[in-house]
Amino acid sequence: MSHEQFQSCIEECIRCMQACNHCYAACLKEDHVAMMKECIRLDRECADICAFAAQAMSMNSSYAKEICRICAEVCEACGNECKKHEHEHCQRCAEACFACAKACRDMAA
Amino acid sequence: MSHEQFQSCIEECIRCMQACNHCYAACLKEDHVAMMKECIRLDRECADICAFAAQAMSMNSSYAKEICRICAEVCEACGNECKKHEHEHCQRCAEACFACAKACRDMAA
Amino acid sequence: MSHEQFQSCIEECIRCMQACNHCYAACLKEDHVAMMKECIRLDRECADICAFAAQAMSMNSSYAKEICRICAEVCEACGNECKKHEHEHCQRCAEACFACAKACRDMAA
Amino acid sequence: MSHEQFQSCIEECIRCMQACNHCYAACLKEDHVAMMKECIRLDRECADICAFAAQAMSMNSSYAKEICRICAEVCEACGNECKKHEHEHCQRCAEACFACAKACRDMAA
Repeated sequence: MSHEQFQSCIEECIRCMQACNHCYAACLKEDHVAMMKECIRLDRECADICAFAAQAMSMNSSYAKEICRICAEVCEACGNECKKHEHEHCQRCAEACFACAKACRDMAA
Repeated sequence: MSHEQFQSCIEECIRCMQACNHCYAACLKEDHVAMMKECIRLDRECADICAFAAQAMSMNSSYAKEICRICAEVCEACGNECKKHEHEHCQRCAEACFACAKACRDMAA
Repeated sequence: MSHEQFQSCIEECIRCMQACNHCYAACLKEDHVAMMKECIRLDRECADICAFAAQAMSMNSSYAKEICRICAEVCEACGNECKKHEHEHCQRCAEACFACAKACRDMAA
Repeated sequence: MSHEQFQSCIEECIRCMQACNHCYAACLKEDHVAMMKECIRLDRECADICAFAAQAMSMNSSYAKEICRICAEVCEACGNECKKHEHEHCQRCAEACFACAKACRDMAA
């Protein structure tokens, strides 16, 4: 794992955390909130594990890879849910999730 | 601030974190989720700051009192929202929030 | 996984988080801090993942088991380091770590 | 508070979190770790509250301003400690802390 790959994975986690937090807050304001339940739930889980992974990597934790492996799974699940919804915040979040999932899988490999 | 008061405030924060997390997950499964938006949002904020305050106090942070002061405000707001709803998880959460708000106010004083 | 096992694992994580935070703060005040480097580092990682696992379990996260699996590893490593040191805070922390590692392994199984 | 100021404060918090985490890990590896005790302790507190503030702002928390007010204080204290030490990681961290303190004060105003 080169320093560049490491830094790039931290940045994807932070971008994804922000996209998920933004999508989470926006979903809670949508009219049809009942349709957004699963999106709200996964946005929250995804933002939290992305923040946790970014902290772990930037303090050089011995468990960073294992945390990234779970983070990749959560990002994948959150991206799959988000892409079902047409809201722009959901579509953007899905993109950030898939990019982060890829970076975390590479990191965990 | 005696050691007993300190430990008791940590325990109230942890109890409140658990009640908020339980209420948050249950609200996301309710039929009338649109009515629960504000409860979901505040449960999440309250659980997170309670966890943060419990960590700060147990590692003897210099900022523990200031964090508890904000925690008391969030708990108060979350308790006021929860008590409007008849679900048992909301009523229990309101109780935990008010008890934690009191402990945090005493801690911050 | 029964409700009792679940609740008991949350409680072990919270106990371990507190013991690690207490040990972390105390190690930073020891005279021979150079000998405590690894203990400080692992206490911090262990407290953080225990807090994360307790939150995940109490909000019924789909990833709770996977987080507990990593948590068990971190607890095991932290307990092994702590038990090398004679300070009472280290010995108590080692006990809390091993109890939490066991609860998390059972949870993850 | 314009959207640009908001986003810029999130970015300063994230930069500061990374600088503090890097400095924390590096301090724990220094030969004269006893001299770095206070730096280690404050790096950790600062990274944690910066991460918390970044999450709060990006999910549009009602308490973001109050959290930023405490974050500014922690950043100021951490920057003042870091700038006493000649290690490059400490000097860089001090810069990130002061920039973040300023952004958080503006945000809290």
